[in-house]
Amino acid sequence: MKRTLGTCYYPEHWPREIWEEDAARMAALGLTWVRIGEFAWSRIEPAPGDFRWDWLDQAIDVLGAAGLKVVLGTPTATPPRWVCDKHPDMFAVDAQGRPRGFGSRRHYCFSHQGYLTECRRIVTEIAERYGPNPNVAAWQTDNEYGCHDTILSYSNAARQAFRGWLRARYPGQGNDGDIDALNAAWGNVFWSMEYDDFDQIDLPNLTVTEPNPAHVLAFRRFSSDQVVAFNRAQVDIIRAQSDAPISHNYMGRITDFDHFAVGADLEIATWDSYPLGFLEDRVGASPEDQRHFARQGDPDFQAFHHDLYRAVGKGRWWVMEQQPGPVNWAPHNPAPLPGMVRLWTWEAFAHGAEAVCYFRWRQAPFAQEQLHAGLLRPDSVIAPGYVEAEQVAAELADAPNFSPAQAPVALIFDYDAAWSWDVQPQGQGLDYFGLVFDLYRAFRRAGVTLDILLPTQRDFSGYRIVAAPGIMVMPDDLKLALSNSGAEVLIGPRSAARDADFTIPVPLPPAWPGLDVTVARLETLRADMPIPVEGGGHVKNWLEHLEGEAEIVFEMVHGLPIVLRAGTVTYCGGWGDNAFFDRLVKDLTTRADIDTIALPHGVRLRDTGSERFWFNHNPYDVEIAGKILGPAGVIRQARP
Amino acid sequence: MKRTLGTCYYPEHWPREIWEEDAARMAALGLTWVRIGEFAWSRIEPAPGDFRWDWLDQAIDVLGAAGLKVVLGTPTATPPRWVCDKHPDMFAVDAQGRPRGFGSRRHYCFSHQGYLTECRRIVTEIAERYGPNPNVAAWQTDNEYGCHDTILSYSNAARQAFRGWLRARYPGQGNDGDIDALNAAWGNVFWSMEYDDFDQIDLPNLTVTEPNPAHVLAFRRFSSDQVVAFNRAQVDIIRAQSDAPISHNYMGRITDFDHFAVGADLEIATWDSYPLGFLEDRVGASPEDQRHFARQGDPDFQAFHHDLYRAVGKGRWWVMEQQPGPVNWAPHNPAPLPGMVRLWTWEAFAHGAEAVCYFRWRQAPFAQEQLHAGLLRPDSVIAPGYVEAEQVAAELADAPNFSPAQAPVALIFDYDAAWSWDVQPQGQGLDYFGLVFDLYRAFRRAGVTLDILLPTQRDFSGYRIVAAPGIMVMPDDLKLALSNSGAEVLIGPRSAARDADFTIPVPLPPAWPGLDVTVARLETLRADMPIPVEGGGHVKNWLEHLEGEAEIVFEMVHGLPIVLRAGTVTYCGGWGDNAFFDRLVKDLTTRADIDTIALPHGVRLRDTGSERFWFNHNPYDVEIAGKILGPAGVIRQARP
Amino acid sequence: MKRTLGTCYYPEHWPREIWEEDAARMAALGLTWVRIGEFAWSRIEPAPGDFRWDWLDQAIDVLGAAGLKVVLGTPTATPPRWVCDKHPDMFAVDAQGRPRGFGSRRHYCFSHQGYLTECRRIVTEIAERYGPNPNVAAWQTDNEYGCHDTILSYSNAARQAFRGWLRARYPGQGNDGDIDALNAAWGNVFWSMEYDDFDQIDLPNLTVTEPNPAHVLAFRRFSSDQVVAFNRAQVDIIRAQSDAPISHNYMGRITDFDHFAVGADLEIATWDSYPLGFLEDRVGASPEDQRHFARQGDPDFQAFHHDLYRAVGKGRWWVMEQQPGPVNWAPHNPAPLPGMVRLWTWEAFAHGAEAVCYFRWRQAPFAQEQLHAGLLRPDSVIAPGYVEAEQVAAELADAPNFSPAQAPVALIFDYDAAWSWDVQPQGQGLDYFGLVFDLYRAFRRAGVTLDILLPTQRDFSGYRIVAAPGIMVMPDDLKLALSNSGAEVLIGPRSAARDADFTIPVPLPPAWPGLDVTVARLETLRADMPIPVEGGGHVKNWLEHLEGEAEIVFEMVHGLPIVLRAGTVTYCGGWGDNAFFDRLVKDLTTRADIDTIALPHGVRLRDTGSERFWFNHNPYDVEIAGKILGPAGVIRQARP
Repeated sequence: MKRTLGTCYYPEHWPREIWEEDAARMAALGLTWVRIGEFAWSRIEPAPGDFRWDWLDQAIDVLGAAGLKVVLGTPTATPPRWVCDKHPDMFAVDAQGRPRGFGSRRHYCFSHQGYLTECRRIVTEIAERYGPNPNVAAWQTDNEYGCHDTILSYSNAARQAFRGWLRARYPGQGNDGDIDALNAAWGNVFWSMEYDDFDQIDLPNLTVTEPNPAHVLAFRRFSSDQVVAFNRAQVDIIRAQSDAPISHNYMGRITDFDHFAVGADLEIATWDSYPLGFLEDRVGASPEDQRHFARQGDPDFQAFHHDLYRAVGKGRWWVMEQQPGPVNWAPHNPAPLPGMVRLWTWEAFAHGAEAVCYFRWRQAPFAQEQLHAGLLRPDSVIAPGYVEAEQVAAELADAPNFSPAQAPVALIFDYDAAWSWDVQPQGQGLDYFGLVFDLYRAFRRAGVTLDILLPTQRDFSGYRIVAAPGIMVMPDDLKLALSNSGAEVLIGPRSAARDADFTIPVPLPPAWPGLDVTVARLETLRADMPIPVEGGGHVKNWLEHLEGEAEIVFEMVHGLPIVLRAGTVTYCGGWGDNAFFDRLVKDLTTRADIDTIALPHGVRLRDTGSERFWFNHNPYDVEIAGKILGPAGVIRQARP
Repeated sequence: MKRTLGTCYYPEHWPREIWEEDAARMAALGLTWVRIGEFAWSRIEPAPGDFRWDWLDQAIDVLGAAGLKVVLGTPTATPPRWVCDKHPDMFAVDAQGRPRGFGSRRHYCFSHQGYLTECRRIVTEIAERYGPNPNVAAWQTDNEYGCHDTILSYSNAARQAFRGWLRARYPGQGNDGDIDALNAAWGNVFWSMEYDDFDQIDLPNLTVTEPNPAHVLAFRRFSSDQVVAFNRAQVDIIRAQSDAPISHNYMGRITDFDHFAVGADLEIATWDSYPLGFLEDRVGASPEDQRHFARQGDPDFQAFHHDLYRAVGKGRWWVMEQQPGPVNWAPHNPAPLPGMVRLWTWEAFAHGAEAVCYFRWRQAPFAQEQLHAGLLRPDSVIAPGYVEAEQVAAELADAPNFSPAQAPVALIFDYDAAWSWDVQPQGQGLDYFGLVFDLYRAFRRAGVTLDILLPTQRDFSGYRIVAAPGIMVMPDDLKLALSNSGAEVLIGPRSAARDADFTIPVPLPPAWPGLDVTVARLETLRADMPIPVEGGGHVKNWLEHLEGEAEIVFEMVHGLPIVLRAGTVTYCGGWGDNAFFDRLVKDLTTRADIDTIALPHGVRLRDTGSERFWFNHNPYDVEIAGKILGPAGVIRQARP
Repeated sequence: MKRTLGTCYYPEHWPREIWEEDAARMAALGLTWVRIGEFAWSRIEPAPGDFRWDWLDQAIDVLGAAGLKVVLGTPTATPPRWVCDKHPDMFAVDAQGRPRGFGSRRHYCFSHQGYLTECRRIVTEIAERYGPNPNVAAWQTDNEYGCHDTILSYSNAARQAFRGWLRARYPGQGNDGDIDALNAAWGNVFWSMEYDDFDQIDLPNLTVTEPNPAHVLAFRRFSSDQVVAFNRAQVDIIRAQSDAPISHNYMGRITDFDHFAVGADLEIATWDSYPLGFLEDRVGASPEDQRHFARQGDPDFQAFHHDLYRAVGKGRWWVMEQQPGPVNWAPHNPAPLPGMVRLWTWEAFAHGAEAVCYFRWRQAPFAQEQLHAGLLRPDSVIAPGYVEAEQVAAELADAPNFSPAQAPVALIFDYDAAWSWDVQPQGQGLDYFGLVFDLYRAFRRAGVTLDILLPTQRDFSGYRIVAAPGIMVMPDDLKLALSNSGAEVLIGPRSAARDADFTIPVPLPPAWPGLDVTVARLETLRADMPIPVEGGGHVKNWLEHLEGEAEIVFEMVHGLPIVLRAGTVTYCGGWGDNAFFDRLVKDLTTRADIDTIALPHGVRLRDTGSERFWFNHNPYDVEIAGKILGPAGVIRQARP
């Protein structure tokens, strides 16, 4: 597979006179892709039914004429004012009951049928017009579902839809649901929360104390399903008109909807990679790491998402928006260390990206993102990111195509588990993503290349280790498939801790065939009181008291077993610190006969089918494998 | 008095088939009491007027047949959905103006007359049916008034009721109030806040800057009175049908209503003791103490409440819910150190509890509290708390009955003072409970046993020290009774600082007959700038500048007197640190000829009429009185 | 100019019987001024049209008879309940959409026409009655515009008025505006935010993510204009009836409206100086400084406001409310170090105050400010502040009149820049006031006396340095006037960074004629990662990457130039720490031939035309200029 570059462009922001020059400069820089159109509804249809295709026709022509391929976005993330005036109740409502109005973007509720109809209409118009256009080589639906906390809406539209969703989940006679089944499944006898009718069920906000977790989890699942349905409506329309692949650009560390389920309807998954904004805002790094990596970004966060979206895209994935300089939206917005734009680009390619597109071509001098860097400055002078993109383009010309390879280690990621932990963290700040990411980091510190898998995966052939921590709802056939996979399997904490309706099953979890382990009790701990483990490392945050006759792998200094094993299945009852997880990774990789290497701080590697990449996320030189890796350094070598 | 054990049980949560076995196991464990029914409205009356007594009849029969005594709760803390549908405005409204809706518990406004009528109706039905039942040996009204911040409601119902309450407090001609009297009492001339009519008076929320403290204090007093009236309505109904004692289960560190006033209508006060949840959430301990006591709980917090509810119950009190393992609702939820469930139980008995009931019999696998431990696990296997309860039951069999005794030291606790400090803290985070508790701790560190008294107490005979810090409104007869009590009396800071309408009196406070002390000025201080006191210790937070000719007991290093005395009355003008309060306790106990003992960190003692108890709240051995007290250790010996 | 003292008095709070004695004591203390009336609407007009002049007539008579001059306030900051009942929608609405109701003060929306009519009516009545009264020697409009965040209102009245304001700013045919001009100016094409009509434009709150900064800035400018219009309506009425000067009392660190624009309509600017409350609440000092200066206040904060209001008042300014003891409204409320009330008073005089009035005469025993000290205690006994005021009065009797003098250094302060930074801080906690104040402090640490100038100033003759940091919108004629002023000019960071509609101009900023500097890129940094500058000091928070051929004055250790200069114009691209700004001040004062002196920590000086004042803000002795300056010490000497 050939590796390509691209950018995001807004012809509607710039004078018609400079489009040709822009296109020529893009082509000269070595770009292949140009994404356009995704916020342009007010220019495509400034008034109901008043379509203005001329400018968009020309923009696509100009770009195509320069040899560029267009990714055309549907503009549904930014309904114009007149659409909102037509549907005044189309806004999402926040958990405090306030409508989230017009004036920025993503101001719609996924459950609003009137807005959905508008979306179908505009997408149909666009797809019919540009489906046949040979310059339109790919599509993007909407933009960054879930950005700005926009998945959960507490609107009337959502309330009505949720009741319908529940009727279908707990079906009864005719079209109605079985309210007794719901009451029983949720345990509504507790605190007299029983309903007589589905129409009595509200959304789970503004209750006196916490609502029933089963109620909240149902709402989370419903909300995700609404996104899937919203996206599918667009996909169905586009696919009827075009053979070009359809994508969506996901956003980092958003787990409010099931990216795999949306991805199932798409040909390509893409994501928007802003390493410095993420470090400030979403990684949750220590103050020391926030300082150390302030200009480089976290050394694992982008890699994790690359691996995640490779799974979401069933192998086909891009970075649709790559940070090219300082951004505008994080608590602090530093400039990248020189070389990092190149490093980030090569890192994406090392993980199998088909394309990396820089956001954006030229910095806009107006509106919300005027301090978001582009490849060009507002005065069209090249910005530092441009120079690094140019270097990558030159390097790509000499580089081999990407050669895919299955990794030796797989990690299962489950959005339903993320919701389950959100619904019941049991300890302040504990979340599923954090647990999975801590374990992912430990494998990476050991130089191990990973794949991320869907929770629906049942065939694990080829993997020597499969890690599936924290998945609270585990169907029996998943347990079975893991046990029979031949791989070393790592589960826990909280594995199989709830049934599908969020009830604790009896026999108690994990109830894993062949593994005599029972979680007899669990506790959560203050972050400042780590509990030492015999032999090194600590358990922090989450500690399960395990019973059973399985082999003890690790135990606490005070005697409690914390990692137990039977055959190839290892249960870990705690959330470990780095030293603990490093030991666990060492134990598993040794058993699985996987080579590891203790990488220096901030250095990471990844293997493709034919190459090994080394990345130095530090602002200083590091010696690795007998070579000096400079600040922001990248080494690409033949795979050992 | 015999010491007994019990548990809280929800027959409606479990299959009918296992009730007999549960009851048999309770009896075998040595339990006497089983509380049931307090959240079961939707099962007692699933639709208006459709009563289902059968299951409850059977449950009481089964428990009674096993030799257990039932505490029957009224289910008014959890009105079913249909009650809310009938009274859609019955929800409390928060200070931001948002109704706090259905979906958890305590979703009612105390001022809503429609809901009050529903409560009278259901309580009448229950009392009439079970009042004559010999197995119903005690009653509980509602559940944990004030939990989840549910006392203050800013609803229309509350607004109307508040206006009526004010009319009665400032009476005028006929049924109307005297609005001029209110204006004068509140000082409404300030900022032109004068009213022409009671119907102009809003609740004191959503003002531009702080509302008049007199307005807020009136609202706080009104809100407390509404709880008293709500509770009394139930008590009156039950008492007409039953001779069994009536109780309510109060919750720790809730001061939003006057527990003494509610208690005046009850035979027994009970409270719900969750030492680990409280340490995380309510004690306000230092990070060091939060770590040190994470699995043991604060060494004084439970004791304080035991003493408080002994006063609320006029001598008769229970722990209605005792934490038996990890809970689910605190920021972190650790497991108790082995032995602590036993320690907590014995500590309650040392303070005079008639009964300690563990919450709950079996951990529920569903709904909000599924991670709240019980004596049994969800799979009915015994949990660690069960074993410790069993040990206590065995120890009780050999133990003498409780022998009450008046303590040498009394501490007056005044809910009105708590509201007064809330209304006008003058320094961030300063509150009445914190001040009183800091002084209580100092007496406890010196090994002194205390009683807590009501602010209405006038007879102090038998006490050698009476401490009454921080009571802002002090009637003249209380001053007189204290001065004439013969006891050493400790008052200040803020004693008698306001009149009944929250105006600074002239002559200036404390205006104490026979004590030439005037609070000339007061200041509040950052927590990081403690001011040293001559001879040791510091004043922090609160510092009064005292004038007068009284004897100087302590003075600041820079010369200001801080503790003054005339005869037996000692005025303390500062909020001291531990060293300061230890010195003050030493001074007072020496004068009062009370023996003290400097207890090791985390060790506490309490004397009953015949016994001395020692408790080790540390996770390590401590040598005390020539004996080794192990972790979570309890020693019960004859009183010296 | 003679220096005078005064106080704030509320005759309506006290019995009629003591007014004469109060007046006599004021006169005996040496006071000249008494402000009255500003919260007394409910006593002047208790019901619509029912005026009660008697008490106010008498109060003015009594004060006048004692030889005191009255400052009469209009009572519009506290509309009585009946006014609100008449105009139920007159309340301001907060950004969350909640009306901010009756019960404290400042409960009105500046845009409400009905309330404006009421204000015109009451002010007309008062002005007509007391305009001719010889005892009324000055006026005050309203009270503390902007206190309690009351400038921005998201009400319907504000929405309608904002649309009208926008129509006038983007004028079109007839009475209507040109919506296309607005769309273009704001860049509304971004995210399809284009409007068809001005009536579609909402206030910029409750959007999904941040609204367009151009939208927000327009709303900030509009909101300021509403205050100016509100104030002018009162001024026009009073001026028609009275020759006495008209003032308003501004509040510290409030930048939500343009104080210069309001001041343009007044004869005198006054402000309310609460040094200890400000240190706790508004200065943003480090914890160390908060402790060190807890009883003295920040050593520069009051001085800055003195200089600011001297500019606002076009030379005529007062302190209308001077803190005389502990206040009630800050997070903590310590008592001033003995001597500080005197120091604060003399400091105001050193900066040119005509009068300093203590707030308040007697501490009120009731309502919101009952713990706010006065010169008298509630029992009429003198409080510590009284004694210090008495000392100042005695010192004034021997002191020369104030002799004004232009300072050698000018600092331009621009409210529009404050809004611009608020609208787009780009880094957490960064604001314009903070930047300007940090630079102001550096000049003061060097013993330099400053003037503050308006952004409309064009004549800089007499100044040797003009500093104008952070002004984002700079008209060409201001650039020109600065370049041609002959003074050393300091600009940056962010100077001239936006055009009038908040768009980045091309050529890129600062685009300063004769100065070859371009801000090629900018970044914001975590507070814990200061970047070292060659030769000493650091850049923190804000760092611009500068290009151009101008002379490098300072550069970063890693090579980036940070201060550039051409001729007399110096551009600083970073927000410096103290060491950096001290070096910059040293560089500029050396070039401008201004003597400096490195003052000890907490010591400050100021020169008038004939005097030099030294102030010791430390709680210990300091040796300065061969003399010992005690705690809170003041030295007044002939100017060197």
